[in-house]
Amino acid sequence: MFRRLFAPTIEVSAHCDLPCGVYDPAQARIEAQSVLEICKKVEGNDDPDFRTRAIIIKEQRSELVKHHLWVLWTDYFKPPHFEKYPELHTLVNEATKLAGASGTKGALDAGKAQELLDKIDEIDRIFKETKQG
Amino acid sequence: MFRRLFAPTIEVSAHCDLPCGVYDPAQARIEAQSVLEICKKVEGNDDPDFRTRAIIIKEQRSELVKHHLWVLWTDYFKPPHFEKYPELHTLVNEATKLAGASGTKGALDAGKAQELLDKIDEIDRIFKETKQG
Amino acid sequence: MFRRLFAPTIEVSAHCDLPCGVYDPAQARIEAQSVLEICKKVEGNDDPDFRTRAIIIKEQRSELVKHHLWVLWTDYFKPPHFEKYPELHTLVNEATKLAGASGTKGALDAGKAQELLDKIDEIDRIFKETKQG
Amino acid sequence: MFRRLFAPTIEVSAHCDLPCGVYDPAQARIEAQSVLEICKKVEGNDDPDFRTRAIIIKEQRSELVKHHLWVLWTDYFKPPHFEKYPELHTLVNEATKLAGASGTKGALDAGKAQELLDKIDEIDRIFKETKQG
Amino acid sequence: MFRRLFAPTIEVSAHCDLPCGVYDPAQARIEAQSVLEICKKVEGNDDPDFRTRAIIIKEQRSELVKHHLWVLWTDYFKPPHFEKYPELHTLVNEATKLAGASGTKGALDAGKAQELLDKIDEIDRIFKETKQG
Amino acid sequence: MFRRLFAPTIEVSAHCDLPCGVYDPAQARIEAQSVLEICKKVEGNDDPDFRTRAIIIKEQRSELVKHHLWVLWTDYFKPPHFEKYPELHTLVNEATKLAGASGTKGALDAGKAQELLDKIDEIDRIFKETKQG
Repeated sequence: MFRRLFAPTIEVSAHCDLPCGVYDPAQARIEAQSVLEICKKVEGNDDPDFRTRAIIIKEQRSELVKHHLWVLWTDYFKPPHFEKYPELHTLVNEATKLAGASGTKGALDAGKAQELLDKIDEIDRIFKETKQG
Repeated sequence: MFRRLFAPTIEVSAHCDLPCGVYDPAQARIEAQSVLEICKKVEGNDDPDFRTRAIIIKEQRSELVKHHLWVLWTDYFKPPHFEKYPELHTLVNEATKLAGASGTKGALDAGKAQELLDKIDEIDRIFKETKQG
Repeated sequence: MFRRLFAPTIEVSAHCDLPCGVYDPAQARIEAQSVLEICKKVEGNDDPDFRTRAIIIKEQRSELVKHHLWVLWTDYFKPPHFEKYPELHTLVNEATKLAGASGTKGALDAGKAQELLDKIDEIDRIFKETKQG
Repeated sequence: MFRRLFAPTIEVSAHCDLPCGVYDPAQARIEAQSVLEICKKVEGNDDPDFRTRAIIIKEQRSELVKHHLWVLWTDYFKPPHFEKYPELHTLVNEATKLAGASGTKGALDAGKAQELLDKIDEIDRIFKETKQG
Repeated sequence: MFRRLFAPTIEVSAHCDLPCGVYDPAQARIEAQSVLEICKKVEGNDDPDFRTRAIIIKEQRSELVKHHLWVLWTDYFKPPHFEKYPELHTLVNEATKLAGASGTKGALDAGKAQELLDKIDEIDRIFKETKQG
Repeated sequence: MFRRLFAPTIEVSAHCDLPCGVYDPAQARIEAQSVLEICKKVEGNDDPDFRTRAIIIKEQRSELVKHHLWVLWTDYFKPPHFEKYPELHTLVNEATKLAGASGTKGALDAGKAQELLDKIDEIDRIFKETKQG
């Protein structure tokens, strides 16, 4: 899925508040992928200290997912985008919630992490359409 | 004094991702107030190094405004709130934009800072209604 | 507008090192309130992963309490305040210790968190007197 | 160039210290791309406050480039990689220096930013070879 | 080994909030030394972008000085120390103020930076006495 | 004064990216010493919450070790140093790995922490030679 989404059309795009104009959902996706791998690794490891470390790092990576998605929502997407994609607010809100207490922060659950990745893919699809539009 | 002001009616409300359940728009407002005071101070001071410092700090404080508002939007507000207040998505999106490049980050402008404070007050009104509901 | 919402007399006060002149013990108090709620939530939850997350977040929130109090002590309070309130150094020192290893960082203990909140209230009372003085 | 490098073969790979096993030079590249765009934007803008903001943000983005490259060097690359690519130490060292005082931190210079991007591409080529090997 | 390298008397001492028991005023001193060197470098350089960068970095380094001193004040020094050295509260408070708006943050002034270093040396003398006591 | 306190040979040296020219391996060493003490403290304490806190803090301190060593490798050491000390790349790479998942982050192991300290001492010896050269 990721290969299909990112492969033929990748556009590295801006993300700082100058703004530099470079934004890229890949930033959120890499962190979410990390969360997914953490969940998988814990499944096969019953060392309690390892589990503690996994939770610490999953907490940080989930926060980074939230941050990168918030930046897209506030800094990249403009009113015309929200008009054209009326589901966009809800989509980003749900994605960020999926990286929080009711999602990947709250559970060591690969299923939740995959849900988060799928939501990011949905945002990415809209993002790519707006880059071409 | 603190007790009187904050005592009978205060609702210090949660903001971490346990979640602890403590959220408070005052966090965003204090940072925005700081941005406003920075803008005012620069108006009366033509030392270029002071201006540079003001821009550095205004950048940080504006980022904190964005962060605190994002936390409210993702962690405090729930689907029923967005249903009851259909303007809420746009309101928070506009407020966070007002703390970015097109707002207080992009300008040393007390007017922009006041606009930001007014938006935060609008969010705060909704927040307080939802706490009572 | 803000005044009406938050009570008749509130003075949001500055906290950055320009300095902007905006300081507010509410910043420390909100974090301490969060620590208290975390302790209460853990009492009623025996999931070990939840406990780990609670400790992670309590560590961060306690650190924020220390930081906000340090800022008041160094940036807001001036020599005349320390002269007028000879207990002020000890008070802030004890409050920051209460948010450290011998206090809320070192224990999941709602009692410790309440002690911390009470100390912050004492600092806040002095703070408010100095604002009026 | 970027399209060619990233297009047909992208592998989002791990980067945290669990380790989750997800590493991706795209993280460094996105930040470096941002630095390049900042330099270009300043060329066409003589507002001194804008220039100050550009320097602030360029400083942060350059630091992120360094961090992401350091992570690859320490956490992803292993002794067999350094044996197979004897230039790898020097390459990463030069790339991180290019994001420092003698490179993009020290100058608002699109040429330096492009040099940095080219070095990251060289690292990325080796990275991709090691992923396939 | 470490003792030999760093001399006969050094005591690396603890500084985290476990607490690990390792504290060392050298942490504050290194940052303050950096601030001093920054001030000197700017004296001999009239490039305005360099000056901007110097102010950005001086701001960060001064903040680190404050942080390291606060940690000593709260985490290392105990009530018996404050009893034995009644000037200690004021000393640390003055040192942290010297790293703030009225000190090294507020000015590109090697004299201020030297004053800060001298204060840190005074704190360090007391620190060393308490380690031996 | 500082020289007297810290011994006849210490040279506090610069570490920011202005660059200020102040670098000092003591920064990495203090954090590594903290990691060692944390490991020792846990050996004598079977409270699971304490262990969780130890892992959290050890994670942070290990990351600081990595950061300080990376700064030396990129910002302090120059091509002539790498020519004169051909083992330097490998040495720093191994030291940073020792503060990562395969070292002090991955284990509560005083032996690993001591290995890390020994590596830092090796880097420090080279550092001191280059300062005199």
